[in-house]
Amino acid sequence: TFTRGIQTVTLIPGDGIGPEISTAVMEIFDAAKAPIQWEERNVTAIQGPGGKWMIPPDAKESMDRNKIGLKGPLKTPIAAGHPSMNLLLRKTFDLYANVRPCVSIEGYKTPYTDVNLVTIRENTEGEYSGIEHLIVDGVVQSIKLITEQASQRIAEYAFEYARNNQRASVTAVHKANIMRMSDGLFLRKCREAAEKHKDVKFTEMYLDTVCLNMVQDPTQFDVLVMPNLYGDILSDLCAGLIGGLGVTPSGNIGANGVAIFESVHGTAPDIAGKDMANPTALLLSAVMMLRHMGLHGHAKKIETACFDIIRDKKVLTKDLGGNSKCSEFTKAICQRVRDLD
Amino acid sequence: TFTRGIQTVTLIPGDGIGPEISTAVMEIFDAAKAPIQWEERNVTAIQGPGGKWMIPPDAKESMDRNKIGLKGPLKTPIAAGHPSMNLLLRKTFDLYANVRPCVSIEGYKTPYTDVNLVTIRENTEGEYSGIEHLIVDGVVQSIKLITEQASQRIAEYAFEYARNNQRASVTAVHKANIMRMSDGLFLRKCREAAEKHKDVKFTEMYLDTVCLNMVQDPTQFDVLVMPNLYGDILSDLCAGLIGGLGVTPSGNIGANGVAIFESVHGTAPDIAGKDMANPTALLLSAVMMLRHMGLHGHAKKIETACFDIIRDKKVLTKDLGGNSKCSEFTKAICQRVRDLD
Ligand SMILES: CC(C)[C@H](C(=O)O)[C@@H](O)C(=O)O
Ligand SMILES: CC(C)[C@H](C(=O)O)[C@@H](O)C(=O)O
Repeated sequence: TFTRGIQTVTLIPGDGIGPEISTAVMEIFDAAKAPIQWEERNVTAIQGPGGKWMIPPDAKESMDRNKIGLKGPLKTPIAAGHPSMNLLLRKTFDLYANVRPCVSIEGYKTPYTDVNLVTIRENTEGEYSGIEHLIVDGVVQSIKLITEQASQRIAEYAFEYARNNQRASVTAVHKANIMRMSDGLFLRKCREAAEKHKDVKFTEMYLDTVCLNMVQDPTQFDVLVMPNLYGDILSDLCAGLIGGLGVTPSGNIGANGVAIFESVHGTAPDIAGKDMANPTALLLSAVMMLRHMGLHGHAKKIETACFDIIRDKKVLTKDLGGNSKCSEFTKAICQRVRDLD
Repeated sequence: TFTRGIQTVTLIPGDGIGPEISTAVMEIFDAAKAPIQWEERNVTAIQGPGGKWMIPPDAKESMDRNKIGLKGPLKTPIAAGHPSMNLLLRKTFDLYANVRPCVSIEGYKTPYTDVNLVTIRENTEGEYSGIEHLIVDGVVQSIKLITEQASQRIAEYAFEYARNNQRASVTAVHKANIMRMSDGLFLRKCREAAEKHKDVKFTEMYLDTVCLNMVQDPTQFDVLVMPNLYGDILSDLCAGLIGGLGVTPSGNIGANGVAIFESVHGTAPDIAGKDMANPTALLLSAVMMLRHMGLHGHAKKIETACFDIIRDKKVLTKDLGGNSKCSEFTKAICQRVRDLD
């Protein structure tokens, strides 16, 4: 059989519970014999010439070389004027697509079952342009910037994602009835991409209607693609449907294979260092990463083991409804990974 | 006992199922001996001088005189370039606050119980400014306009609403971490209003976090106040939690007592004229109207009758899970109203 070489991934453990859950992921990857070698880097932003905040050069260099990163939570902002680390990372590596598969986890009860959808968020522009002005005293404007190029890129990505992941439909989410030019442009690019991908069904829906329908019956949705702010909102809403940020994986995708996978929950300073954290979101993000790298067998094995342990309900961290420590939960998943061999 | 005079309300039956559900409401109001006299008007927009779309003068005159309106669904747009009737009405009468109480209805099952919150949406500016530009080919901007005056007005309204409706807390919903100036201004005005209303608890929350928490546990929320687009989204999301637009009332409030109450569902042309429509949303909007007019006794009686009939499950329209006609459902509520006397 053909054996790939071991690939190096930049690991950004992050702050708070970040190091613990990163260790958990590394142990589970070892148990699964995933052909991954980790290169740990700290991305706490530093101030470069002129006071500009930037990713430390050795972290940037590592990502540039490895192209793939796995990242725990980062505390942010760390100082006044300090940018959001998430925004800085997206910008530095032009990670234009935020991808969040939201799939109901058997045994982890929420008001919904059978959720199985993916939100794809444009990650670089729109309401996040950062351009704002004071017009006159008491009157302020923020600019939402939509470009043809970024809209086309994300629309194309959504359809390619659908095709590569055996998903039947893409829904463009918009408010082009109100923002006729900006959301109109976004929508037009989605329609054009749909024309090129006739194998994938295409629908369009107003954001408010999506929200209304989503909480009534999320099973009607498959892949959803949308501008930046709408994605910020919908991706968190959908994470809520399946149990929250503690169990939802996330990936930020850029051009030429560059990607950073991350858990999007906080650093949970109150339980940091106490072996109480839940590594599921980071683990499932790492599973997304394996799939992105084409390592489908390892991805499946680890994912199955994780879901098995959650379904068994015997060894669960506190937030998942159990009494076990992070290390015990991790060990149970490692054992299951080995049993699956 | 002191008897108020009969007050006149402008009734805009609307299109599709509008006339049927308006008739239902009028019958129930008669049964409850509500001291209301209806003045029916058609608001189908007409084109004034220079092609400007406007509300027909007799409808405008009626609203200006009566100050209070009740409105069914309107089909819109009726022609290319025709504005949304909802937007035109909000603009014409400066209805700056959209208010939607979302309260779980006993007997009408959704994934949630005990929802009891109110969304208060700034209705006049923000992302709905309508200002957009083509910067260069392929680059478009939409302007979100936030003013001190409108932010202050809606913030004040939210706190006064909370106080007048025995509600304990107001949450300002924003993305001031991203839109520092515009949402920042909105948030500052909320904080200032909070300072003046120390009897009401004040919290602030990011829109994405609200969405995440909302679908996980909506019972943690009370009154929520937010800029226009966020309100568009959240008000529909919250309606979804309690069963959708068919059971959710809505009110648009302006200065000096002017207000239009409306059902926010569509015109349902497929079932129009077939005596199948569900009048609940319009009826509960009319109940909101009665409260707004200080007619609390009549409001309570009609609301109780409506909820009793829904809880009984014997006479329900199709969308509510029953087999009854609109007229039968209406008759059942009328009977219950009389029994409550
Ligand atoms: C932290 C914040 C800047 C960020 C956003 O608003 O995009 C977050 O909510 C996210 O979704 O990654
Ligand atoms: C019809 C549309 C213009 C409107 C809006 O976006 O505000 C609607 O969604 C609403 O909430 O009343």
